[in-house]
Amino acid sequence: SISHHYRPISSAPPSATQAQHEALCPPQSILIVNKLRTEPVIQAIDELLGHVKKTYPGVKVFSEDRPDIPDGAEVWRPGPQAEKIDLVVTLGGDGTILHAASLFSLGAVPPVLSFSMGTLGFLLPFHIDDFVKGLEAVFHGKATILDRMRLSCTYYDKEGRKVGADGNEWQVMNEIALHRGSSPHLNTIDIFVDGQHLTEAVSDGVIVSTPTGSTAYSLSAGGPIVHPSLSAVVLVPICPRSLSFRPLVFPSSSSVTLRIGDRSRAAAGVSMDGRVSHVLNPGDSVTVQASPYPVPCINRSSISEDETERQGEGVGPGKEDDWVRDINNLLQYNATFRSKALLRYSRT
Amino acid sequence: SISHHYRPISSAPPSATQAQHEALCPPQSILIVNKLRTEPVIQAIDELLGHVKKTYPGVKVFSEDRPDIPDGAEVWRPGPQAEKIDLVVTLGGDGTILHAASLFSLGAVPPVLSFSMGTLGFLLPFHIDDFVKGLEAVFHGKATILDRMRLSCTYYDKEGRKVGADGNEWQVMNEIALHRGSSPHLNTIDIFVDGQHLTEAVSDGVIVSTPTGSTAYSLSAGGPIVHPSLSAVVLVPICPRSLSFRPLVFPSSSSVTLRIGDRSRAAAGVSMDGRVSHVLNPGDSVTVQASPYPVPCINRSSISEDETERQGEGVGPGKEDDWVRDINNLLQYNATFRSKALLRYSRT
Amino acid sequence: SISHHYRPISSAPPSATQAQHEALCPPQSILIVNKLRTEPVIQAIDELLGHVKKTYPGVKVFSEDRPDIPDGAEVWRPGPQAEKIDLVVTLGGDGTILHAASLFSLGAVPPVLSFSMGTLGFLLPFHIDDFVKGLEAVFHGKATILDRMRLSCTYYDKEGRKVGADGNEWQVMNEIALHRGSSPHLNTIDIFVDGQHLTEAVSDGVIVSTPTGSTAYSLSAGGPIVHPSLSAVVLVPICPRSLSFRPLVFPSSSSVTLRIGDRSRAAAGVSMDGRVSHVLNPGDSVTVQASPYPVPCINRSSISEDETERQGEGVGPGKEDDWVRDINNLLQYNATFRSKALLRYSRT
Amino acid sequence: SISHHYRPISSAPPSATQAQHEALCPPQSILIVNKLRTEPVIQAIDELLGHVKKTYPGVKVFSEDRPDIPDGAEVWRPGPQAEKIDLVVTLGGDGTILHAASLFSLGAVPPVLSFSMGTLGFLLPFHIDDFVKGLEAVFHGKATILDRMRLSCTYYDKEGRKVGADGNEWQVMNEIALHRGSSPHLNTIDIFVDGQHLTEAVSDGVIVSTPTGSTAYSLSAGGPIVHPSLSAVVLVPICPRSLSFRPLVFPSSSSVTLRIGDRSRAAAGVSMDGRVSHVLNPGDSVTVQASPYPVPCINRSSISEDETERQGEGVGPGKEDDWVRDINNLLQYNATFRSKALLRYSRT
Ligand SMILES: NC(=O)C1=CN([C@@H]2O[C@H](COP(=O)(O)OP(=O)(O)OC[C@H]3O[C@@H](n4cnc5c(N)ncnc54)[C@H](O)[C@@H]3O)[C@@H](O)[C@H]2O)C=CC1
Ligand SMILES: NC(=O)C1=CN([C@@H]2O[C@H](COP(=O)(O)OP(=O)(O)OC[C@H]3O[C@@H](n4cnc5c(N)ncnc54)[C@H](O)[C@@H]3O)[C@@H](O)[C@H]2O)C=CC1
Ligand SMILES: NC(=O)C1=CN([C@@H]2O[C@H](COP(=O)(O)OP(=O)(O)OC[C@H]3O[C@@H](n4cnc5c(N)ncnc54)[C@H](O)[C@@H]3O)[C@@H](O)[C@H]2O)C=CC1
Ligand SMILES: NC(=O)C1=CN([C@@H]2O[C@H](COP(=O)(O)OP(=O)(O)OC[C@H]3O[C@@H](n4cnc5c(N)ncnc54)[C@H](O)[C@@H]3O)[C@@H](O)[C@H]2O)C=CC1
Repeated sequence: SISHHYRPISSAPPSATQAQHEALCPPQSILIVNKLRTEPVIQAIDELLGHVKKTYPGVKVFSEDRPDIPDGAEVWRPGPQAEKIDLVVTLGGDGTILHAASLFSLGAVPPVLSFSMGTLGFLLPFHIDDFVKGLEAVFHGKATILDRMRLSCTYYDKEGRKVGADGNEWQVMNEIALHRGSSPHLNTIDIFVDGQHLTEAVSDGVIVSTPTGSTAYSLSAGGPIVHPSLSAVVLVPICPRSLSFRPLVFPSSSSVTLRIGDRSRAAAGVSMDGRVSHVLNPGDSVTVQASPYPVPCINRSSISEDETERQGEGVGPGKEDDWVRDINNLLQYNATFRSKALLRYSRT
Repeated sequence: SISHHYRPISSAPPSATQAQHEALCPPQSILIVNKLRTEPVIQAIDELLGHVKKTYPGVKVFSEDRPDIPDGAEVWRPGPQAEKIDLVVTLGGDGTILHAASLFSLGAVPPVLSFSMGTLGFLLPFHIDDFVKGLEAVFHGKATILDRMRLSCTYYDKEGRKVGADGNEWQVMNEIALHRGSSPHLNTIDIFVDGQHLTEAVSDGVIVSTPTGSTAYSLSAGGPIVHPSLSAVVLVPICPRSLSFRPLVFPSSSSVTLRIGDRSRAAAGVSMDGRVSHVLNPGDSVTVQASPYPVPCINRSSISEDETERQGEGVGPGKEDDWVRDINNLLQYNATFRSKALLRYSRT
Repeated sequence: SISHHYRPISSAPPSATQAQHEALCPPQSILIVNKLRTEPVIQAIDELLGHVKKTYPGVKVFSEDRPDIPDGAEVWRPGPQAEKIDLVVTLGGDGTILHAASLFSLGAVPPVLSFSMGTLGFLLPFHIDDFVKGLEAVFHGKATILDRMRLSCTYYDKEGRKVGADGNEWQVMNEIALHRGSSPHLNTIDIFVDGQHLTEAVSDGVIVSTPTGSTAYSLSAGGPIVHPSLSAVVLVPICPRSLSFRPLVFPSSSSVTLRIGDRSRAAAGVSMDGRVSHVLNPGDSVTVQASPYPVPCINRSSISEDETERQGEGVGPGKEDDWVRDINNLLQYNATFRSKALLRYSRT
Repeated sequence: SISHHYRPISSAPPSATQAQHEALCPPQSILIVNKLRTEPVIQAIDELLGHVKKTYPGVKVFSEDRPDIPDGAEVWRPGPQAEKIDLVVTLGGDGTILHAASLFSLGAVPPVLSFSMGTLGFLLPFHIDDFVKGLEAVFHGKATILDRMRLSCTYYDKEGRKVGADGNEWQVMNEIALHRGSSPHLNTIDIFVDGQHLTEAVSDGVIVSTPTGSTAYSLSAGGPIVHPSLSAVVLVPICPRSLSFRPLVFPSSSSVTLRIGDRSRAAAGVSMDGRVSHVLNPGDSVTVQASPYPVPCINRSSISEDETERQGEGVGPGKEDDWVRDINNLLQYNATFRSKALLRYSRT
């Protein structure tokens, strides 16, 4: 089973999610998620579908309800009555995973196996060419999982009344960002931590991010890089009119409330994982808390490589960490001036 | 008992430390720690000692072995044979607590009650004028505790041999900092996380910090502010010759190894909580890991204020958090230009 | 004359502007600029007008064309046919000066005497209570001036055609900022310096700022503080998706072109000194260059204080610099943790 | 002549330096400077010397006084009696130019032609393989020059007495850096600008840098990148114990004084261009000002390329700027995450 190899790096007690994964194995149903319908994506889906039908007969394959659902797939609609999904497969960029996660905003998210179409991303452990190996790892119980924390966002109006139906909370995998948008004026946002007033931010906006999101918008705004297995919440201002507003990292048990100041000259537009959603007017607020439903992401290391090879990179067995590789590879983290230069500029 | 009110904010399982605190209540022995011997400190110690003798008869009071130990106190020497201490009382600045913690480098640290002498610090919940209330809270089991994580540091030579006797590990409460010191040349330090190579830092040095230390040297070097109840490790470079070396936050389960590059032009001086200790030459390394022995610090909120009063500040009972107040008060965190200006510059 | 005491701190050859100021002395015409019409502002204008009529008879006083122009003032309309103004007096915040400067977008700006109404700002040397002294300094030729550089912005469409009539250039005193506004997507902006491609910025936006503007939006986005007497252009990205995009400072002789990338997913809204103006679509561009017309701002030090008093602050005569005082006072620049804390938090 | 093509990008009046360069053309004497005596360097010097003797007969070639001066070179000693040098040729890294400049600390520096030995640097326009072309440009009067500003440093003791003989000032091309070195304690440094107190820095140290030095230590400490043709002084703190100490940029007419606070717990070691020199004790100070003697560095663009080729890069004739290319090439300035990743990590 998936959970067989489940090695929580997280410090949070893994029991709940572990149990859940156990039940899923081997998957009886797969949801394929893609945002783009370009030729390579269509073709890849067709191949993947063919492979599943042949290799894992009896497994149901679903697709979101769109005009052009792939041959052999059934329509799947999110919501309380949704068909049970045991595995999500995404094809596309980081945004595709964010979208996939958003389909499961009411409860647990099935394990997610993510393939890139060439452009690489932080949330994309596998290249599409490796789809056979990736599925095999899952179906043979060799997959290891990283539970990526989500944040749930609850909105309140000026009078403190919850906005929207109960249980209808928004879940984000990267971040919730408040921003003045195209208003010429600065936002005034009061920030509370566990009900206690922390500070008043006069700024373009404020980001509350997960560790996963720490390499997304939060990083651009000056935030630290936080390992995705840490249970934490990152608070970063966007262009604050203050020299001393540093990024803050809280335990995931904290609840953070952002309230638009009564005399704020601008309303704040809200983006959740990059999707524009609410507008908060002076007095309105949003409370952000760790969600009980993380996104279980299947690690690249599930495709076992030759033990020796891995040790060659200086990593003992069972210690490989996609994230360290990502930071190192994708960001060219900390390449010094000199060595970069030599790469591109040397004569010969 | 102290543990009665122990409310772990930390996400780490609190059982171990909780049990320990339970055993201590009410304290049978107190160790008084002070670095300075200025007149106000001497006087405060005398008053405190007198108060303890009168109010809590039978409680033993200890002092470090120095020429001028206070009247009525017995000498205490750290080490495996040390007398058991149930409560540490510090008088002085942040450095005094760092020193007190360093006296218990081999195992558990008793709860620490810290008084400032006027200058305030991040680790100083109480003003010396409140010592009666502070002791009362402890002896009446009303004290709440924040377990401040420590890091243990193990040194290795070029051949990978442990340096120093077994079990002889260094524990830091703030940080371990490697720095080129007065060498004109940059350090080259290879950084490994859980044995995996993360990056090569060419810089003045590197800091590995606890959340407690995140408001100390790490902050000056550009690091984020991390809540002390989070179990995490912060890695921050000092003046890196790279534009892209951002601060990193790891789960406390990670082990970080810093190894001086074989061709590093400078050796690295090591400071632990500000005390200069080792020099690491090319090939030498140090491995840093969460220590099993945190420092249990008694919170300011142990001196119970009127419930209503506290709620007036917008905090529900049992939710008050010294840290939020500290960030807000001590750092004047994020005071905007305008409001600061008005404080100091307004005419009238 | 004003120019008598004109001591250019600027490294730029001051001849042109000096000649101009010479001609203005003593002022024959004053333009009063205010944005707000609150009671204190109206009252202050009335007093000021009365004082001018009485003390400097024959001097014409103008006001912008608004429903409620003050008694005794004539209407003034900007443009090529505008009445000649020898002195601008502003009452209000920093934004009022920005607005005043924008009224003279076609050519030279008259010297500007700026009064704050209580809230202080970077561009506000005088408190309204000092208006008698301020005017006296100007009329008696004791005023010293800081020429604050402006940037002129020329817009081009995809085909490289200039947008707007010739000579119709925009002048900014703080900055021009491009921003994705409320678009969910990142901007791609190609940056050219003197026609040479510098970099492609993938970000929320880009700021090109004057030294004056370096304490405004640019500072919030992470830019350095640049002395307003330096002739320089500051380039700062807003939330760039790159770890290595540092603020850049160019000589004022440089021309900076920002061109929206052809495949940029977002258009860029343009703000000039905080006023929303253009929208730039993929292919459109704006070229920014030092304007020949700075804003001559009358210094606080024009109100001569007792020589001894000033020396008490450690400044030799003729060396006093409003800016150093501003940085120090308004920003509480670099107040250390400890001392701040003591200000607000000490017991007693 | 060199000055024929001299196109000052600087805003400072170029007349003085221009006149000087005029006099040098064509060079009658060359000083060869190298720090390392590795095989490739020795060989390159021999080739260069042979080429000069053959192609430019009558030109004297000098070398610093070292045990192993190259065949055909005469010994040169710095100082008031030094032989007149018309051209300096350096072989090595950035440090070699810093060293060459330091040999001319008393007055004007001859034009510097700098060759790298393979590793590239910011101050190294030419690869050693191009030495024939480089010399030709100089001898045929086609060289263009960038005058790189220097800072002169004057030291004072506690009593305000100048330290060292008159005229014996230190000149730096990159920066002067004060640092606590291996002292465990923070420095307290009072900073004055033009005699006015700006702030008290409690930090590891302070850097005062030229625009040239803005890509060296200052950049590592968080400073902006300043174009070397700007006449400016950059002030950057090193690890300040303050959230609000931003980098500052002053006009080159400013004088900056750094004075060790009387109660500073640490002395400050001084490094000038990386060379450790003085120790400043509490009360001691150093005053830093633009030097009248910049370092005239011969530009890469002196080796004229095909006009068309250059235009292909989008730069009009006479507008090519080594610096923009450097920022772009050497720093891989602002490469976004994605594109970097694709360079190194793409499959295929
Ligand atoms: N200035 C900035 O950096 C901004 C960033 N964003 C980010 O974009 C995200 C939405 O992504 P898309 O739907 O793909 O929109 P998009 O197509 O506009 O892409 C934004 C970029 O962020 C990357 N990204 C997304 N999540 C990431 C993560 N966890 N770690 C590292 N990189 C990540 C994507 O690969 C893409 O390069 C938002 O959640 C937000 O974090 C959104 C607006 C501005
Ligand atoms: N450039 C910098 O910021 C440097 C900072 N330090 C810090 O000093 C610490 C040692 O402190 P002391 O023995 O008192 O030496 P110290 O007397 O030199 O004080 C250093 C300052 O750091 C403050 N500090 C200490 N721990 C803190 C914490 N956890 N949060 C906020 N502020 C804190 C102290 O109150 C004091 O203001 C080291 O652990 C290191 O973190 C040490 C060297 C340089
Ligand atoms: N996130 C941010 O920091 C933003 C800043 N702004 C700034 O606001 C300016 C427009 O100002 P207002 O019309 O007063 O709008 P506003 O009333 O929205 O004020 C913005 C703030 O910037 C201050 N400010 C303006 N110019 C300044 C300067 N040169 N140095 C220091 N502070 C300065 C003002 O005093 C005010 O506190 C723009 O030019 C832009 O620089 C605009 C949008 C966002
Ligand atoms: N943490 C840091 O970044 C430190 C930097 N330095 C810098 O090193 C300089 C001395 O250089 P070396 O004698 O070569 O010593 P070094 O061999 O230790 O080299 C320091 C590095 O700085 C580079 N460098 C020097 N000047 C530069 C400039 N103007 N722009 C960009 N990069 C530059 C060199 O190429 C080399 O990579 C000092 O002036 C100081 O700026 C010195 C100490 C610490």
